[in-house]
Amino acid sequence: MDYVIGLDGGGTKTEALAIDLSGAELGTWTGGPGNPHAVTFATASTELGRLLATVKDALPGRRCLAVCAGLAGVDTAEERSTMERYLTQTLTGSAYEGVSLLIKNDAEIALKAALGSSKGIIAIAGTGSIIYAFDSEGNKYRAGGWGHLLGDQGSGYDIGLSVLQTVMKSYDGVLPATVLTEAVLQKHGIRDAAELRGIVYRPGVQKAQIAEHAELAVRAAAAGDMLARQIIVRSAEDLADLVVALRNRHSGLDRLKIGAAGSIFAHCTLFYDTFRVNVSQEDDLSDVVLSGRRSSAGAADYARELAASQGVK
Amino acid sequence: MDYVIGLDGGGTKTEALAIDLSGAELGTWTGGPGNPHAVTFATASTELGRLLATVKDALPGRRCLAVCAGLAGVDTAEERSTMERYLTQTLTGSAYEGVSLLIKNDAEIALKAALGSSKGIIAIAGTGSIIYAFDSEGNKYRAGGWGHLLGDQGSGYDIGLSVLQTVMKSYDGVLPATVLTEAVLQKHGIRDAAELRGIVYRPGVQKAQIAEHAELAVRAAAAGDMLARQIIVRSAEDLADLVVALRNRHSGLDRLKIGAAGSIFAHCTLFYDTFRVNVSQEDDLSDVVLSGRRSSAGAADYARELAASQGVK
Repeated sequence: MDYVIGLDGGGTKTEALAIDLSGAELGTWTGGPGNPHAVTFATASTELGRLLATVKDALPGRRCLAVCAGLAGVDTAEERSTMERYLTQTLTGSAYEGVSLLIKNDAEIALKAALGSSKGIIAIAGTGSIIYAFDSEGNKYRAGGWGHLLGDQGSGYDIGLSVLQTVMKSYDGVLPATVLTEAVLQKHGIRDAAELRGIVYRPGVQKAQIAEHAELAVRAAAAGDMLARQIIVRSAEDLADLVVALRNRHSGLDRLKIGAAGSIFAHCTLFYDTFRVNVSQEDDLSDVVLSGRRSSAGAADYARELAASQGVK
Repeated sequence: MDYVIGLDGGGTKTEALAIDLSGAELGTWTGGPGNPHAVTFATASTELGRLLATVKDALPGRRCLAVCAGLAGVDTAEERSTMERYLTQTLTGSAYEGVSLLIKNDAEIALKAALGSSKGIIAIAGTGSIIYAFDSEGNKYRAGGWGHLLGDQGSGYDIGLSVLQTVMKSYDGVLPATVLTEAVLQKHGIRDAAELRGIVYRPGVQKAQIAEHAELAVRAAAAGDMLARQIIVRSAEDLADLVVALRNRHSGLDRLKIGAAGSIFAHCTLFYDTFRVNVSQEDDLSDVVLSGRRSSAGAADYARELAASQGVK
């Protein structure tokens, strides 16, 4: 039984998904970082090679026909060909030697997973956020994604930081009472919001730990808390603004469908609906599609298409 | 000729100002950090002792009657008495042994410098920001000052970060063109705003380096740039909101005068006026006083009062 592999490589881990030629899932595996800028091209290649070997071992007696790796940090043609060179070298002498290899960007596989197409707009809202668009001519455009200081509107970090600042403004009496306060105090096991200083400014606190507070906003908003709703709405509007601006700047992006990927879209209807309403043209909400699939599934789709285009060997 | 000394101790440096009993300035000197939490109580005491020795050497043949140290990080009665104990010990055996010593908070001396009183509200807007109020009964209240993540509205960091985010939003087409872009590119010697990533996320970038961009907003606002004006106005409004909320929460703060200290107040009329209008009651702008004096002058005033209350020895 032949199969293909889709890899979704990020800065801390890579997910591998194997599917057979009918698209049925054979399993998923997790390996080390696949973003060459988070580690190095050599390290990323080694990690991907190790993960592929794990998949091979788990599926004995089967033949892998193609691999597609969608990697964060691989944006330019040069980065793609460098990555391809490193990975080909890593796989030389392994069971994957000679297997068709396709290197994509993580946004491309997210788009494929969401829309089943290589054409469209993808809004990704995780710890950070970014918008990518790919037009019919294969051109790529971006908006946002400048990181936690320069701006990643609609991200978990953005929302989480707003939660913390809202709690302090409520503490100071600038904003009214909010259930966010109790939620934040409980999360950290503290009794007074002023104690947050000792938590947030502790050395080594990561962006992801700030982003964790987004979850509290999602829950409080669902429970009707006004300030939590405002945080979610503003954040989704800011993300939508990036899409609208990107479309205004480049003709040809106008009628493209928009995929929405990331847990905030999936877990917060208020966020998703606000985003949809703000990006939709002529009140046609069908332009936006919530991605129900993992990015690795998009990569696996590309690998399956590659195998099919070459005919079964 | 007798004199007294005022010390303004912060996290990185301490300023000493010596005045004679008529209030005439004899000189200023700079020493190491005086905030016991930025270093330790022992280190802060050593640094203050060293600075006082420098003043002594520079004013030979004169007698020091009193010292007042206004120190950041010395907020509670316990911290004050600990600091007093350490400093007294440090000065034992020195020329300052037996000289009257007064430990104050940095906000108290800023208030004294601005209003000439120990009663009032002081809004401090530097790299960070904070509001303190001292009522007629000697009670102390605060609002804001939670730091760059939790919130320091109206601070240089707040404004500087807004400058950077505004430039990126303008780059993405979410906001219109602004002269801030050219100002930021020039400051860093880069040609494209996307290159800011390589600057802002460089390891070791400090809050003060983000705050430096506030100056660009002040200049651009003065030149009429709409987005720069919005940044300044929003920031001043947010700071004023803290004052209004503090007053609403505590009776007795209503008719207190407000001192405004920090370079943004001094160098940006738009900021100062926006703040004044937003905190003023019944359109009486005379409640707000721009501090034209250094905090060390407030400490020196306290030292002079202390010397006077004890009579010339």
